Amino acid sequence: GRKHRIAVIPGDGIGKETTPEGLRVLDAAARRFGFELELKHYDWSCETYAETGKMMPDDGLDQLRDSDSVFLGAVGWPGVPDHVSLWGLLIPIRRGFDQYVSLRPCKLLPGVKTPLADRAPHEIDFYVVRENTEGEYSSVGGRMFPGTDREFVSQQSILTRTGTDRIIKYAFELAMTRPRKKVTSATKSNGITFTMPYWDERFAEMAKNYPAVSTDQFHIDILCAHFVQHPDWFDVVVGSNLFGDILSDLGPAVAGSIGVAASANINPEKDHPSMFEPVHGSAPDIAGKWVANPIGQIWSGAMMLDHLGERDAAKAITDSIEALLRDGGPRTRDLGGQAGTVDVGKAIAEAV
Amino acid sequence: GRKHRIAVIPGDGIGKETTPEGLRVLDAAARRFGFELELKHYDWSCETYAETGKMMPDDGLDQLRDSDSVFLGAVGWPGVPDHVSLWGLLIPIRRGFDQYVSLRPCKLLPGVKTPLADRAPHEIDFYVVRENTEGEYSSVGGRMFPGTDREFVSQQSILTRTGTDRIIKYAFELAMTRPRKKVTSATKSNGITFTMPYWDERFAEMAKNYPAVSTDQFHIDILCAHFVQHPDWFDVVVGSNLFGDILSDLGPAVAGSIGVAASANINPEKDHPSMFEPVHGSAPDIAGKWVANPIGQIWSGAMMLDHLGERDAAKAITDSIEALLRDGGPRTRDLGGQAGTVDVGKAIAEAV
Ligand SMILES: CC(C)[C@H](C(=O)O)[C@@H](O)C(=O)O
Ligand SMILES: CC(C)[C@H](C(=O)O)[C@@H](O)C(=O)O
Repeated sequence: GRKHRIAVIPGDGIGKETTPEGLRVLDAAARRFGFELELKHYDWSCETYAETGKMMPDDGLDQLRDSDSVFLGAVGWPGVPDHVSLWGLLIPIRRGFDQYVSLRPCKLLPGVKTPLADRAPHEIDFYVVRENTEGEYSSVGGRMFPGTDREFVSQQSILTRTGTDRIIKYAFELAMTRPRKKVTSATKSNGITFTMPYWDERFAEMAKNYPAVSTDQFHIDILCAHFVQHPDWFDVVVGSNLFGDILSDLGPAVAGSIGVAASANINPEKDHPSMFEPVHGSAPDIAGKWVANPIGQIWSGAMMLDHLGERDAAKAITDSIEALLRDGGPRTRDLGGQAGTVDVGKAIAEAV
Repeated sequence: GRKHRIAVIPGDGIGKETTPEGLRVLDAAARRFGFELELKHYDWSCETYAETGKMMPDDGLDQLRDSDSVFLGAVGWPGVPDHVSLWGLLIPIRRGFDQYVSLRPCKLLPGVKTPLADRAPHEIDFYVVRENTEGEYSSVGGRMFPGTDREFVSQQSILTRTGTDRIIKYAFELAMTRPRKKVTSATKSNGITFTMPYWDERFAEMAKNYPAVSTDQFHIDILCAHFVQHPDWFDVVVGSNLFGDILSDLGPAVAGSIGVAASANINPEKDHPSMFEPVHGSAPDIAGKWVANPIGQIWSGAMMLDHLGERDAAKAITDSIEALLRDGGPRTRDLGGQAGTVDVGKAIAEAV
């Protein structure tokens, strides 16, 4: 039978609570659809940092390298600065494995209450395609004249042709698989006048190769406004690392809950493992109470199966999530319910 | 009597339609409150660019220098690239006159429909304080290896101590004048690891001087989500040039209409004139139809009077705007009405 090797990193906080539910559902899908998951567990987290001084061992990436996918919970904990926790674990995996696509569905699920007035599920159903390796998240920068009135900090934003073209191409390819076939580009070329005009230029160039795809573009400020006022306008939205980051939190917020939002960090060529993680963080405020919503994690698992070629299994999971929400199954606090993390995980696993 | 010298630049598109209504209301306020406005009109726009090759004359800033304020409509027109129109007029004024505060109220007005479900006017009432001279809108950057596969563009983001401290201080001073006395900082120090940690550091330092003000901070991605999910959390929100730009379009969108949103570009020391302009742009799609909403422009006029020390007149204008909206006065299309630009301007002028 088919076998997929999965590296599991629950990480911190509610990641430790949602990951087991993700695995529970994946396991149910494997049994039903006849494939095998070979799991390797890694305890890398802010706790191991406290013990060892490292978020992951020096050969961490090598340990993950021959898995087919990484299944991640959440990273970060109060007391450990983000530049240690995130830049010691999450970001090195995204970059080291050249997971240059961050793919994030924004979908209003049936039975979920959106903060917007008068919006039905079919009106919010789009993808944010985020560049995941360069742009505003750069490692070039520094501080000068520290401690004086002349002090300043500087950080470069970098767009390479390779990095820009491949993410835009991914967005067009994705649009080709969807009924509406539309790509929206997030820009800010009127204010950020070196990098963003280049983004626009490469977008226009790529669009020529996809005459069947319709396009538009908005500056990030008004685009955020449109997410709230006209979420029905969007099909596939492509943006730089920072703009994609912003839009892929705003999109799920508009669609009702960040607790259900999933994300994939993809290396499309499969030269390296891809990584699947919920959009939410480690949520220290509710960690340890077992009330976190596991749906973002479970949905990320479905995206992982899809990436691994297990299309039917992936669809069974997303269908089960939708059915649970629509038919009044157990729901966690963020969705107005009383259920615990495990209740929701079990219900979805059973449905699968 | 008191006299204020105002430089009026209607600019492009609907700016030419909303500015006269702004002036109509300012004139009514002047007559009622006994001060004089000495207007100088400037036709600087994309049209003058087409004729002269310049958005404003070389000595443009000098021509404006001894006015007390600049009253601007909108800048930009299809066919003239943004880096010409905006960087030839709007941005040089903001920078040349060191208008380092962009102040933008986000207020749900009575009678305006917000896209959010179940939100009452008092629940959305905050200010975005945006840094307006440096940050991500920098003039340092360039392109290397053009036309090859190695091509890349780079743009620096710059935060100076002077620039960072003074905008954060302005936010705290503003919070001190408000009942809730709260400042929220927009950051992204987990991803943008040179500039944003510095922002956090200066924010924490400044907060020590204002023990009466409560503070919090969010990364820009989740902050945008909170604007939609919890707009009632905010009182004064301070951000860098880009983050402030994004939040000050998202805030008005959440509060119902960008057509009513006002903004002030302030030089608090009054070393140079400040500039007042609506948040909306030149709106080529509706320009020439006289259906644009003039309220953003009129409200900007009220902010101008406030800056010039005409507090009562400013309040009379904002009260009249609120009364018009609450009591079913004429409203433009964007607010679900049928009225024209002039109808709304006249109604507010009369009420004043
Ligand atoms: C037109 C553009 C350069 C401008 C900005 O980003 O500053 C506008 O969006 C604004 O917010 O005033
Ligand atoms: C934690 C942080 C560095 C990360 C990011 O900005 O990439 C997160 O916000 C995300 O969206 O995955």
